[in-house]
Amino acid sequence: MEKVIINEKLALFSEHWKPKIVGELNEQYVKLAKIKGEFVWHKHEKEDEMFYVLSGELKIELRDKVLTLNPNEFAIIPKGVEHRPVAIDEVSIMIIEPMSTLNTGDAESELTVKELDRI
Amino acid sequence: MEKVIINEKLALFSEHWKPKIVGELNEQYVKLAKIKGEFVWHKHEKEDEMFYVLSGELKIELRDKVLTLNPNEFAIIPKGVEHRPVAIDEVSIMIIEPMSTLNTGDAESELTVKELDRI
Repeated sequence: MEKVIINEKLALFSEHWKPKIVGELNEQYVKLAKIKGEFVWHKHEKEDEMFYVLSGELKIELRDKVLTLNPNEFAIIPKGVEHRPVAIDEVSIMIIEPMSTLNTGDAESELTVKELDRI
Repeated sequence: MEKVIINEKLALFSEHWKPKIVGELNEQYVKLAKIKGEFVWHKHEKEDEMFYVLSGELKIELRDKVLTLNPNEFAIIPKGVEHRPVAIDEVSIMIIEPMSTLNTGDAESELTVKELDRI
């Protein structure tokens, strides 16, 4: 059992929109991702999703408002709620969600990542 | 649905060893706690527990080694593993664990907190 040093893990990759698994607990994964640009609108039918911002400014667009998250701020998107992450400049985030969660939820596309790396 | 600003939440309390609920997802709570001193040795039979350090230096004593965590580092203690958190100076942490998790696990004592505040 070892600790996870977030900054060491973030230094291991640079690609955007490809979450990496860095831990697991209670049938969920802890993932790190770097994102930039606009993602797709999607929802997760059965899974709540936690976004914790590590660096940069993340906007999570919802159908009725926008959440703007800075470092050390988080939001939990409940199951069934449509959302779209947007990062004008690069943002690093930690995501906690069930192992079953697909990044694009119900909106599979070329952005969908089915096989996640573990770093 | 609102974001959670960790520092605003931490400013709302000062007591040690009394975790506060700040979010929930997938039958788990996200909690914040301030701790100082030595906790009790305990384990959680069925629940994995994530400790994410926000400020200070947290030592998690295990039976065979010690994990020393600084800010933006985390550790996941698997179910069944005995551990004891120790903070020489005050440490602020985020904890993610099932709603059913009792802070002292199998070692109920005067440190056990059964009714958690939500802030």
